[in-house]
Order: sequence, then structure tokens, then C-alpha cells
Amino acid sequence: MTEQEAESGFGLVEALETTRSIRRYHLDEDIPEGHIARMLFLATRAPNPGNLQKWRFIVLRRDAVAVRKLLGDAYRDGWSEQRETYGFNRLAAGDTSSRGRLARAMDEFVADFERIPLLILACAADADSSYLQGAPIILPACQNLLLGARSLGYGGVLTTWHRRVEQPLRATLNIPDGALIAAVITLGRPRGHFGPIRRKPLSGFVYDGSWGASAAWADEPAPPLS
Amino acid sequence: MTEQEAESGFGLVEALETTRSIRRYHLDEDIPEGHIARMLFLATRAPNPGNLQKWRFIVLRRDAVAVRKLLGDAYRDGWSEQRETYGFNRLAAGDTSSRGRLARAMDEFVADFERIPLLILACAADADSSYLQGAPIILPACQNLLLGARSLGYGGVLTTWHRRVEQPLRATLNIPDGALIAAVITLGRPRGHFGPIRRKPLSGFVYDGSWGASAAWADEPAPPLS
Repeated sequence: MTEQEAESGFGLVEALETTRSIRRYHLDEDIPEGHIARMLFLATRAPNPGNLQKWRFIVLRRDAVAVRKLLGDAYRDGWSEQRETYGFNRLAAGDTSSRGRLARAMDEFVADFERIPLLILACAADADSSYLQGAPIILPACQNLLLGARSLGYGGVLTTWHRRVEQPLRATLNIPDGALIAAVITLGRPRGHFGPIRRKPLSGFVYDGSWGASAAWADEPAPPLS
Repeated sequence: MTEQEAESGFGLVEALETTRSIRRYHLDEDIPEGHIARMLFLATRAPNPGNLQKWRFIVLRRDAVAVRKLLGDAYRDGWSEQRETYGFNRLAAGDTSSRGRLARAMDEFVADFERIPLLILACAADADSSYLQGAPIILPACQNLLLGARSLGYGGVLTTWHRRVEQPLRATLNIPDGALIAAVITLGRPRGHFGPIRRKPLSGFVYDGSWGASAAWADEPAPPLS
């Protein structure tokens, strides 16, 4: 059994608990077509409105040089802005906090953007470019795609900085006006590890019966897995 | 090992391949608080923009009588309209096609809406009520919630007919103007079975390099699971 085949033995709960965003990849390893198809198969088992299957996935492999450059520039600009806006620029070099590690992972992610093994543009057809129409078509499938990638030993991240270059992106890829481009998912074999996932206590965002009515029971110790 | 504990042994791939929308429930079985918390814990392991955790979940249990009635009426109206618009009204009673079965499941779903064991309103705070801002915050978590429910033996469906009564719903639940109400997820222990999931061949929605460039390789037989 290869390493990748072994990964498909993952339990559902373990996958949900540990599949965090992966931004660092083995950049020179391609993802075989069979694996791309398999991930998209699992993505499209997600629910979608009326089962009309209006999701559309544009697979951008190594040879999509022009669009990768377009996106890479957009992502470098986007991160450069966030670096300043959210104070990452004030962190010391080599800061070992989670913010420091995130900043270094982001630096690397955008610097090498064009070399990421696989990019997938997650779109919705006939959505009038509106998230109101389009998001429920495609975003649950995006999460299935990331979990399905995990089953094959890959990791990725769901990103939306493509919006900074949305018009040239549409022109380059012939994306019709009525379609929504919901996200760019980057994929590859991870360098670094999955999990743990850092979140606040549940009672901060679980309400019981109406907005703001904090659910104290939500922070009881979780029941055992099995 | 109880039946529910056994469920948590699900493999990731099996869960992705077979977790379809469930609309028929054992209506009189409550979901214990510990299980609700556990599902929401798994939901919030999903990625979210900047890890700001702007997701908000309003848990509507049996005692949320007024809001359940408000939603029930909206869902009955919504289904009544779709029954006419999409030709379900022209199906023979007892039609055994997948459309016929869907129509009967929907009839039952909306008729018994107020008796569904659990409703969760999936929201995003500080989203300016906009799907553009709000959807990536909350919809991946909704898919994790449905998969997490599966791990505990529950099933559900992601729905959006709450929009028909959005203003009274906001007033009843004190939901602020800036928050997006993205979906209502209904949950309970299934009557009926999970899977199989019906989808068109991948090449109908997987494009290679640009919009409309169908990826023939996507329909090759999927690689074995392990």
C-alpha cells in the first residue's frame, strides 16, 4: 500500500478535526489526472440547490502560465496589503507565535504562487455573478474538495483574492458574465503537518434560541469519539 | 458499542460519497445537547477567512415555537411554488421515479417542518448582510456540520427558503442588520437511507484550462479507494 493509498483509510471524524488550510507544498510534484478527477468526484457529492449541478471547476495546471501569473500578482498584492493592515509587518523576523508562522507561510505561498502544483477555480454557472444565487451551489463542494484532497494525501486552501483581478481573469478564461467565480483552491502535497486547528470556545458563536443568547452547554467537554 | 458510536467509525471517503440530503426524520427523537455541541465543534473546524470565526449558529430546539411556525409557513409556500414551477404537480400520485420520490419527501418535510428535531440557522456576523462577504465564512462550516452530523448518526439538509420571511425572522431572533442568514439546516435521525448520490458525469462541469474546455480525462474510471 502506498502512502497515498494509506491516507484514504482516514476516519471521517479525524479528517474533520484536523484538515486545516495547507499553504506550503512540495512544489515540483504534479497531481495525476486520476487524482484530480477523484477529488472533483468527491467534491461533487456535496449537496447543491435542486441538484441542478451548476458548479463549474476550471482546472489550472502547470501550462496555464498566463493566468497563474495574473493570479500570482493579485495574491502578492493582496498579502502585501494584509501584511500592513493587520500588523504582520510589525512582527519580528523569526517570530515563533502562530501569527509569525502564518506570516512566513503566507510569504512563501504568494512568492511561489505560480509553482503551486494545482489551482482550481470554483465557479457557479447561471448565477448572475451574485453570491446570493451562486454560493450555495459551489461552496459546500469546495469543502468536500478539500476533504477529498486529504483522502489522497493532498492539502490546500480556499482563497478569494482572485477578485482583485476578476475582469482580466474572466477575459483570459472566457468566463461568461452570468457565472460566479467563488474561490481559487490551491492544492499540492503538504510540507508540514495537518492540525491542530485553533478555534475559540463554541459558546462564543453558538446561540440558543435567539441571536446573542449564548449556549453555555456548547462548551461542555465533547463526547468521546467512539 | 451503540449504533451512534458505531457511526463515528465511518471512513472519510465513504462519508463524502454517501452523505446525501436527508429530509425524513424520526420526528419524536430529540438530539441531546452534547451531540449538538459535538456537531457544531466539527462544523467550526472548517476553514474561515482570516480565522476570524465570524460564524454564528442559532440553535432552534422544540421550544422555539414561534420561529418554527414562521419558517414552516415559509417552507410550505416555497415548496408549493416549486411544485408548480418545476412540474412536480403534473406527476402521478405514487410516481416511483426519483422526482416522484423527491416530491413525496418534500411534501412530508414541509408538512412536518415544525416537528423536525433540530433547526440550526447558519449566519455570519459583520457581513453587511452580503453573501459576497458572508458565504465563505459560513458555508464550508455548513458542509462540515452535515458531515459531522453523519458521524453521530444524524442527517440533514441545507435550505434557503428562510429568505421568504427574512425580515420577521430577524425581528423575532434579534439578528442584527449586518449579519447574513445564509441557511437553515434541519437535522434529525434519518428515516430512509444515505446514498447513492445522483450526479452527471464530471466532464459536464470540469473544464481544463479555460471555461468550456471539457476535461475528457475527468470521466476515466475513478481510482480505487484503497
